[in-house]
Amino acid sequence: MVIELPSGSGRPAYQRLAEAIREGILSGRFRPGERLPPTRTLARNLSLARNTVLEAYEQLIAEGYLSARHGSGTFVAPDLPDRAFRAEALAVQPSPNIDTATPGLGAFGRRVLQGEIPAQMAEDRSRVSAYEFRYGTPSFDEFPMDAWRTLTKRVLDYPPQDLLGYGPTEGLPALRESLARYLQRSRGVRCDAGQVLVVNGSQQALDLAARVLLDPGDVVAVEEPGYPGARAAFAAAGARLAPVPVDREGIRVGDLPERAKLVYVTPSHQFPSGAVMSATRRLELLEWAARTGAYIIEDDYDSEFRYEGRPLAALQGLDEAGRVIYTGTLSKVLLPALRLGYMVAPPALQPAISGAKWLTDRHVALLYQAVLALFIDEGHFERHLRRMRKVYEQRRIALMEAFGQHFGERAAISGSESGMHVLVNLAEVRDADAFVKQARERRVGIYHARPYFLTEPPPGATFLMGYSSVTVDGIREGIGILAEVARASRVPR
Amino acid sequence: MVIELPSGSGRPAYQRLAEAIREGILSGRFRPGERLPPTRTLARNLSLARNTVLEAYEQLIAEGYLSARHGSGTFVAPDLPDRAFRAEALAVQPSPNIDTATPGLGAFGRRVLQGEIPAQMAEDRSRVSAYEFRYGTPSFDEFPMDAWRTLTKRVLDYPPQDLLGYGPTEGLPALRESLARYLQRSRGVRCDAGQVLVVNGSQQALDLAARVLLDPGDVVAVEEPGYPGARAAFAAAGARLAPVPVDREGIRVGDLPERAKLVYVTPSHQFPSGAVMSATRRLELLEWAARTGAYIIEDDYDSEFRYEGRPLAALQGLDEAGRVIYTGTLSKVLLPALRLGYMVAPPALQPAISGAKWLTDRHVALLYQAVLALFIDEGHFERHLRRMRKVYEQRRIALMEAFGQHFGERAAISGSESGMHVLVNLAEVRDADAFVKQARERRVGIYHARPYFLTEPPPGATFLMGYSSVTVDGIREGIGILAEVARASRVPR
Repeated sequence: MVIELPSGSGRPAYQRLAEAIREGILSGRFRPGERLPPTRTLARNLSLARNTVLEAYEQLIAEGYLSARHGSGTFVAPDLPDRAFRAEALAVQPSPNIDTATPGLGAFGRRVLQGEIPAQMAEDRSRVSAYEFRYGTPSFDEFPMDAWRTLTKRVLDYPPQDLLGYGPTEGLPALRESLARYLQRSRGVRCDAGQVLVVNGSQQALDLAARVLLDPGDVVAVEEPGYPGARAAFAAAGARLAPVPVDREGIRVGDLPERAKLVYVTPSHQFPSGAVMSATRRLELLEWAARTGAYIIEDDYDSEFRYEGRPLAALQGLDEAGRVIYTGTLSKVLLPALRLGYMVAPPALQPAISGAKWLTDRHVALLYQAVLALFIDEGHFERHLRRMRKVYEQRRIALMEAFGQHFGERAAISGSESGMHVLVNLAEVRDADAFVKQARERRVGIYHARPYFLTEPPPGATFLMGYSSVTVDGIREGIGILAEVARASRVPR
Repeated sequence: MVIELPSGSGRPAYQRLAEAIREGILSGRFRPGERLPPTRTLARNLSLARNTVLEAYEQLIAEGYLSARHGSGTFVAPDLPDRAFRAEALAVQPSPNIDTATPGLGAFGRRVLQGEIPAQMAEDRSRVSAYEFRYGTPSFDEFPMDAWRTLTKRVLDYPPQDLLGYGPTEGLPALRESLARYLQRSRGVRCDAGQVLVVNGSQQALDLAARVLLDPGDVVAVEEPGYPGARAAFAAAGARLAPVPVDREGIRVGDLPERAKLVYVTPSHQFPSGAVMSATRRLELLEWAARTGAYIIEDDYDSEFRYEGRPLAALQGLDEAGRVIYTGTLSKVLLPALRLGYMVAPPALQPAISGAKWLTDRHVALLYQAVLALFIDEGHFERHLRRMRKVYEQRRIALMEAFGQHFGERAAISGSESGMHVLVNLAEVRDADAFVKQARERRVGIYHARPYFLTEPPPGATFLMGYSSVTVDGIREGIGILAEVARASRVPR
């Protein structure tokens, strides 16, 4: 029996020795019943302390690979199963040997792999531009980190036991109260704290709603263009997506398929076009849902920022028939990294949704919830909101002015009344892909609108520009560069 | 047109007024084209500032309920849809009016409601005992909160931009590295950092695996008795559960159904019996999976605590065929409230699982991940582990001694070699429910084992006792009280 000691990165010698012996047994080199070298001999041969060898043997005895007979030594266990005898076939390999052709995925797994994950997964990480017009990301520099740090420290200084163990699936009562008050006051949502579910960002709300409501083959109406993260959640649940066009008043209710089980809308600031759903359209949509029995998911993702007129109340607040599932996120108002969002579902759906949340991951981490509740209750949240409205408003003005100056009527811009981004169409540009690429080469980060269309995007270059994380000067410079790129691209090639 | 101002809790008067007018329109009391009172008149009638009325009118003009004609006043918009005319039928209600009989749930939602949510949801919150023998919850008092607070503060003092926005779905690279090293070193898991997925506690790992692998009707073998949280995730995915008995060596591989797509095991410390899976059984199980093509979920939930012999290496480390999905949690070692766990899947499954994680909630909140990476890298984690092993070992000894003293042979205790709880059977007790209830009335919190059995639990009282969060004195006193309750319950009633 030849035992060698594998070299190991930081692992104790007894472990490496035990592994070598275990692999000797599993590969069939050491046979059942075979006697191991006495600990003293092996220690000498391998230049190890005898205790190390003893530890390795003990470990393997505990695991059942070896057995010790008092007075007569240590042996390979006699009752290991067949596998230990199939010597060559099971030679030990450095890493598992996978048959990638048959991963045995279920329908959901296959749907996830078969293109239902938008290209955004990659895009989300490319942050290469000097003028980074990312959409959907707040200005990190403006986040009141001092207040957040102070409140975090306060929670961690004397954390109550309730914040250490398992917590309520629906969220901390204090946070649900704070959110309910905020949503009533600022968004016209009709809810009490008992209806608020705290989730890991609004994507989880979409996923939970999709899982609870949808069966494979169900029809889900989605805005066209629209938000791929929502589409992905519906498609992964097996739904068939029915794209419904959006105009300046929001989703065209007349084009909704009668058989839709669910319709997904962003009424405050349609993503990505920025259309604000009119009151007429809102009432039509609610009537349609009440009549057909469909549910509406209202994704109120960036409603906090509205520059012309006051914020429109949420669709949910007008709903008499209990058809609206309201979702919101703190990723736009605070930080995406926190993964905090909320969901207000009609009472009839709540038990299933809470149950699904429990099955999924029990509840949102409690410390963040506690910090956020303090952050809201002590006024930091709305103070931050007011401040950011002013900051973004200045950036929005700079953007609109710069477009006016450099492009005049040649740029069609939609969605500037609210939110954190605009959708821009430059009809004069022939090759949209090349335009976005050239802009990026000039370090201006803009985002092609194609991923948001299930159908063909309009002619010319259509792209998203978030202005929330670029300074006023950066916006002016960036759009100046865009104008140069556009001029170059007008020249026939 | 009679307009009244609803009283409101903290909401500004203009909002309440706008709401009153909006509801007047929606309920049909105010007709399309009808003229609103002049702002001055209404302000006087309601004792409001004129500006308040102006703001309310502007709000409703922005929302499209009113229209202003220059010089001639403000009117109810003429083009609101039908709904506004169905006066009585749509009288405004204080809260949405739900048809609870037809919530329109899909199959998943119905499965969630139809009893697949274990009673634990309620149980998790009842913490009423003086001697609280909760299982699966660490000792909060021993958590190194000072270190955690210091590291949190360090991260929040100068947080890099990467910790503020959206992050990588799989987890922060630094944390994945730290976890991979820990799992290699301490658990014998064969993985690199690229295989580690950071999840919201191991429940999310179970849910993701279930979603990606299972189709409705698939057979999943589960340990009997076993962990309800896992069963719930599989059942919710539509699986049929096949209970497979557990003996002192772990799940009985010979009883596994050939057609199982997945088998769920807790080899380090079977939940709840505490059996440690023998090496023979491990190899049999791996052979069975390689032969049938089934996947194995290895839930290594409390393997860190082993008192007799050294920790057994994970099943995953022996797997040559890429059939083991390994999951672990930091809920037992650190705090459940953090919702941090990890998952190591065979490479073939990783794209689908990462995709599912992205669809579900993008990624785990970044701040906790960063703090945990520091916590591990600076040695706090393993220092805490070593400390807790000693603490729990003392508590375990106290528990076994107290049972010996008070019950002698009359208590059958399993699972004491490792983990944080034992399973106790008192064959002499006739009415198990009454026993648990009487113990609780005497402020000794023990947990009936029935929820962990799909079949009938053994005769007598079988219950779980976690000793991780009770002091040595508390353990002695609590078991003394249990003995009194048992004596009383032996008397025929």
